Amino acid sequence: MYGQKRIRDYGITIGSLETGKRNAITDVAGVKVGHSTLSKRSMQTGVTAIIPHQGSLFKEKLIATSYVINGFGKTMGTIQMNELGTLETPILLTNTLSIGTAADAVIDYMLDHNQEIGRSTGTVNPIIGECNDMVLNDIRARYIEKRHVFEAMESASTDFKEGTAGAGTGMLCYSLKGGIGSSSRKMEMKHGDYTLGVLVLSNFGTLGDLTVNGNAVGKKLISLIGETGEKKDKGSIMIIAATDLPVSDRQLKRIIKRAVTGLSRTGSIITTGSGEIIIGFSTATRIEHDKPHDHLSIPTIHEEDIDIAFRAIGEAVEEALLNSLVTATQVIGRDGQTRPALGDLLEKYDIQL
Amino acid sequence: MYGQKRIRDYGITIGSLETGKRNAITDVAGVKVGHSTLSKRSMQTGVTAIIPHQGSLFKEKLIATSYVINGFGKTMGTIQMNELGTLETPILLTNTLSIGTAADAVIDYMLDHNQEIGRSTGTVNPIIGECNDMVLNDIRARYIEKRHVFEAMESASTDFKEGTAGAGTGMLCYSLKGGIGSSSRKMEMKHGDYTLGVLVLSNFGTLGDLTVNGNAVGKKLISLIGETGEKKDKGSIMIIAATDLPVSDRQLKRIIKRAVTGLSRTGSIITTGSGEIIIGFSTATRIEHDKPHDHLSIPTIHEEDIDIAFRAIGEAVEEALLNSLVTATQVIGRDGQTRPALGDLLEKYDIQL
Amino acid sequence: MYGQKRIRDYGITIGSLETGKRNAITDVAGVKVGHSTLSKRSMQTGVTAIIPHQGSLFKEKLIATSYVINGFGKTMGTIQMNELGTLETPILLTNTLSIGTAADAVIDYMLDHNQEIGRSTGTVNPIIGECNDMVLNDIRARYIEKRHVFEAMESASTDFKEGTAGAGTGMLCYSLKGGIGSSSRKMEMKHGDYTLGVLVLSNFGTLGDLTVNGNAVGKKLISLIGETGEKKDKGSIMIIAATDLPVSDRQLKRIIKRAVTGLSRTGSIITTGSGEIIIGFSTATRIEHDKPHDHLSIPTIHEEDIDIAFRAIGEAVEEALLNSLVTATQVIGRDGQTRPALGDLLEKYDIQL
Amino acid sequence: MYGQKRIRDYGITIGSLETGKRNAITDVAGVKVGHSTLSKRSMQTGVTAIIPHQGSLFKEKLIATSYVINGFGKTMGTIQMNELGTLETPILLTNTLSIGTAADAVIDYMLDHNQEIGRSTGTVNPIIGECNDMVLNDIRARYIEKRHVFEAMESASTDFKEGTAGAGTGMLCYSLKGGIGSSSRKMEMKHGDYTLGVLVLSNFGTLGDLTVNGNAVGKKLISLIGETGEKKDKGSIMIIAATDLPVSDRQLKRIIKRAVTGLSRTGSIITTGSGEIIIGFSTATRIEHDKPHDHLSIPTIHEEDIDIAFRAIGEAVEEALLNSLVTATQVIGRDGQTRPALGDLLEKYDIQL
Repeated sequence: MYGQKRIRDYGITIGSLETGKRNAITDVAGVKVGHSTLSKRSMQTGVTAIIPHQGSLFKEKLIATSYVINGFGKTMGTIQMNELGTLETPILLTNTLSIGTAADAVIDYMLDHNQEIGRSTGTVNPIIGECNDMVLNDIRARYIEKRHVFEAMESASTDFKEGTAGAGTGMLCYSLKGGIGSSSRKMEMKHGDYTLGVLVLSNFGTLGDLTVNGNAVGKKLISLIGETGEKKDKGSIMIIAATDLPVSDRQLKRIIKRAVTGLSRTGSIITTGSGEIIIGFSTATRIEHDKPHDHLSIPTIHEEDIDIAFRAIGEAVEEALLNSLVTATQVIGRDGQTRPALGDLLEKYDIQL
Repeated sequence: MYGQKRIRDYGITIGSLETGKRNAITDVAGVKVGHSTLSKRSMQTGVTAIIPHQGSLFKEKLIATSYVINGFGKTMGTIQMNELGTLETPILLTNTLSIGTAADAVIDYMLDHNQEIGRSTGTVNPIIGECNDMVLNDIRARYIEKRHVFEAMESASTDFKEGTAGAGTGMLCYSLKGGIGSSSRKMEMKHGDYTLGVLVLSNFGTLGDLTVNGNAVGKKLISLIGETGEKKDKGSIMIIAATDLPVSDRQLKRIIKRAVTGLSRTGSIITTGSGEIIIGFSTATRIEHDKPHDHLSIPTIHEEDIDIAFRAIGEAVEEALLNSLVTATQVIGRDGQTRPALGDLLEKYDIQL
Repeated sequence: MYGQKRIRDYGITIGSLETGKRNAITDVAGVKVGHSTLSKRSMQTGVTAIIPHQGSLFKEKLIATSYVINGFGKTMGTIQMNELGTLETPILLTNTLSIGTAADAVIDYMLDHNQEIGRSTGTVNPIIGECNDMVLNDIRARYIEKRHVFEAMESASTDFKEGTAGAGTGMLCYSLKGGIGSSSRKMEMKHGDYTLGVLVLSNFGTLGDLTVNGNAVGKKLISLIGETGEKKDKGSIMIIAATDLPVSDRQLKRIIKRAVTGLSRTGSIITTGSGEIIIGFSTATRIEHDKPHDHLSIPTIHEEDIDIAFRAIGEAVEEALLNSLVTATQVIGRDGQTRPALGDLLEKYDIQL
Repeated sequence: MYGQKRIRDYGITIGSLETGKRNAITDVAGVKVGHSTLSKRSMQTGVTAIIPHQGSLFKEKLIATSYVINGFGKTMGTIQMNELGTLETPILLTNTLSIGTAADAVIDYMLDHNQEIGRSTGTVNPIIGECNDMVLNDIRARYIEKRHVFEAMESASTDFKEGTAGAGTGMLCYSLKGGIGSSSRKMEMKHGDYTLGVLVLSNFGTLGDLTVNGNAVGKKLISLIGETGEKKDKGSIMIIAATDLPVSDRQLKRIIKRAVTGLSRTGSIITTGSGEIIIGFSTATRIEHDKPHDHLSIPTIHEEDIDIAFRAIGEAVEEALLNSLVTATQVIGRDGQTRPALGDLLEKYDIQL
């Protein structure tokens, strides 16, 4: 994406399934991603927006669900998403202390686009995810304003920057610079060809655990540069998964729950302070907001078709995470804090992955 | 059912929706119920079988789910039911210490009817529910044998006995004789007329809490006959809900979760020792065991259609519970233990409900 | 409270347990409640704050948990509360579209009081609940500002107004004026006397279902005044439960889950559009934010002690709900919309409860 | 254990924490494991018993919980375990179609040892886990009898056989011979030294995914010997985790949920047909069956102490799984079916791990 050097450009192939054209969440037709990036001295933060489809999100809801790997996180909107199995807004990612602002802005945006909300129909359920970027960013300063949230939504595109961008601007991962990463996988079934894409906002882990395709890269780096950060993980990871596979929300939950296999293979032990939350949606069906006369007819795969989606999400999450690391560029933030970028280290020490 | 005097025969109408023809779970087309009753001195126990449809249960699975109101219970089979959202066997109810025997018998039955299980396909997931009938029944004697389980399944019919029958033989409820009860409700929607039926195995509560359609009958009875049993509730209730409404397993879980509204209106406070578990299934869709070439297309109601089903299950559970009480007949069991039958008390003391 | 006429003043006694001194959530020592009320023409909304204890909420966390009766709601903060079993902020209630503002304000408040947040320690998890007051309030106008949230927190007291106050200003319940209600119960155990208190923000239901202590008052009112509102319920209820009982978060979840028994006895069928969410906390133990050298020692009741708490919460929720109805006063809001106050109707038609 | 060649004997060290003395679940004081092995032609099955402590299991319950990674499994007893957070029986593992027999036998055993069950106190909740051994074992023949279950419990010891033993006799894993494996980790905290041990019954996966400490061993084996089994995974894994760490059941659930990190690192994608269920218990506290006069005081770690337990279980599960593979010996079972033993392949092809 965006001409950035990604993990495959280092000769690493994760898993066995083919990627989509962009190898990104935007390989799922209709999905777009936008950023608002604030990067200047102590201000190292931002907003990332995932737009699930290009119609009216409120009037044509998508089947959606969420799964909590570890709940030390403040993600908003999952209660209703899990009860009703649907998504009706963009998904926004930002820093932990800006979730209120982001919610407020998404509500503004939805009210603007849907005059009937709060009048002839009920309210709206914004989905906001977050990670804590307090090491590089002065998170107490609350830099995010509503206009940044609007900017992220309005700039959404099928092509987007990874690494140090949007909500990923100030994030750390495995004691290195982290941030935004993406990847996708194709899934061939007898009844059609489908795609599953993921986007991660990576912000967890300590260097010694980093594993790249089975290779204990973190331990090698420690032998070269020593420990680079806190020994105590206070991070998080947000994972957004999109697919055009026809699934029920139960099947979708089964799929996104497997994101943890990819995470684990990068070395994660899922520490207590790490909010690790996945939000998934399928573009295969649009559920009308207004009740039709007839019942619905929901296309779903047979359960015996699902294993390839389990494999796809594990591979895509593992690769998206690695993409977030190798595309991230170093920033110098609050109090001069910084963390090395993996790409720089690989080049400097001439490490083969 | 079976010419027994039911709660409506006492002039009590629960709620506002119409009942099905039999006012029983068997108003849902294809559902049958059978009993095996063991009633002789210290042996006051039995088995009740609910057959969800009349085809091959294993090869044509139904959408199904379960919900735990309170988990002090030993119900088997819910893990897989919740993961896959399907039911593939009859549902059996018996006493707590006979669940192993019941599981064994259902496995025998399923192997007999499906030569491919354990050969060309995997295994089978029996669903066994239970309540503890130790006051009236010598539960340590383990009277239930496999033949009783077979008898319950083989005798299943659309007409069945309530009260002191099958698994309900030795059960107590609100310190009175409890057991099997059933009721149903009709649900009119624009796209069709549907039915929801429930069967309860009632075995919980203490007399002072019993409420009949808002009337504190339990307190009146205590003023007449004193406390009749233990003050400490060690009971349980199993609730089986069937419907022909086209629903996803998520929607079905939302529906069966509302069973608690009906229970609460009879006076339940859901004590710690009471296993209260609901198993629900829909006959609207049959999911083939073998994967088809194409994806599935699952008919489901729009979420805005669901409120009538929420009302239906609350009313049907409340009425089924009251039916279990008024149809139950007194038995003298282990160590001469007994509990009065509500029907007898109403007559003896000429109480108007 | 506040000299308002409450349900007991109508001669109604709910259940059998004794109430605390104020018969309110503030009978639990340390708990305080504050309101900010905005009531003027189309602006009929507000904020209610529950302060769980009078020490440093962040540094001395309480054991806490949440339970979703029905998830059509936007409550924030439950993911972390459920993962860690603790509460570290006040609990705020407001209208659905003001949750972002409320979150932002609570974050401000917590940053002000805890300089280490976002510096030497991680972030903070605000708890915001909401109901939709769009019928009486112009919810799209977003009247709530941060200063109202601060006002609610700063005005918190052991004595507080019920009915049309704070977040309850614009709420409807059973097609009547709803809002804030509270009640409490005492629980005697061998090892001590304890209190459980609840506060509800009531905003759900249709008139025909309203039941007062077993009495079908809603149906009587319809015969007198006709239907008063929409037939379709788009409401919600938030329930906050406080206790000084020593419990684990698992035990607390078991307790608050029983709130539904009280709700059901007032007539609720828990419609699909009603967000019904309970947040519970215990003041018995304070968990230090900073890790001590030794392990903790958590006082908890033995499971066999818990039934009285199950009874207490059902009774307190039922009574709090009825208190919210009889203390509410009529308002004329957006587009001249109004709903009768139950107290006025009882007086006007001389109805005995 | 038992002089078998384990994964460390191949020079492989998993993770960074030290193991306990035996590197087995029995490093947790009081835990014992026993087998009953049935291995003869088409009969390749058995029973494994884990005895959690050496006192009265029913009268002195342990804090316990379960977690479902994937629910295509028939494990019994988890509903009550999760509601009450306690364990009151041995844990038994066997083949899928013998769970009824195993439950029946455990009930016999518990009734024998506790005359008050079903008389002066309630019933008992047996915990039975299972995997499907139908490839090597004639599972339809139902070879397991109660006496085998008793034998497993009665032969329990701190030293026990891994691989092709007990319930592991007929199991397959990664298309190789699987079965029983165990491992443990030590956890040093300021307030004490603790141990966490796991036992796995491995029966899932296909050869191409097998990864040993980051090394794609499965793909190498395919290049040497071709695919060895079904491409379709119908397996399962049961994981039992024991610890002497003082934890609440919520903390314990957080810990056992991390078992998936270890599984993932061996290559698992968690296929749909694989029942993957974890049961965990802590020996740190015994909860009396009978209610004491006073409340309890439960020792638990502070949440900030928990990360080492998360690391420990991931490492121990990964190592236990590998131990199950390298200790397993080949059997020729039903219809002459067999699967190679990993140990044999490593030797034959002189593969360095």
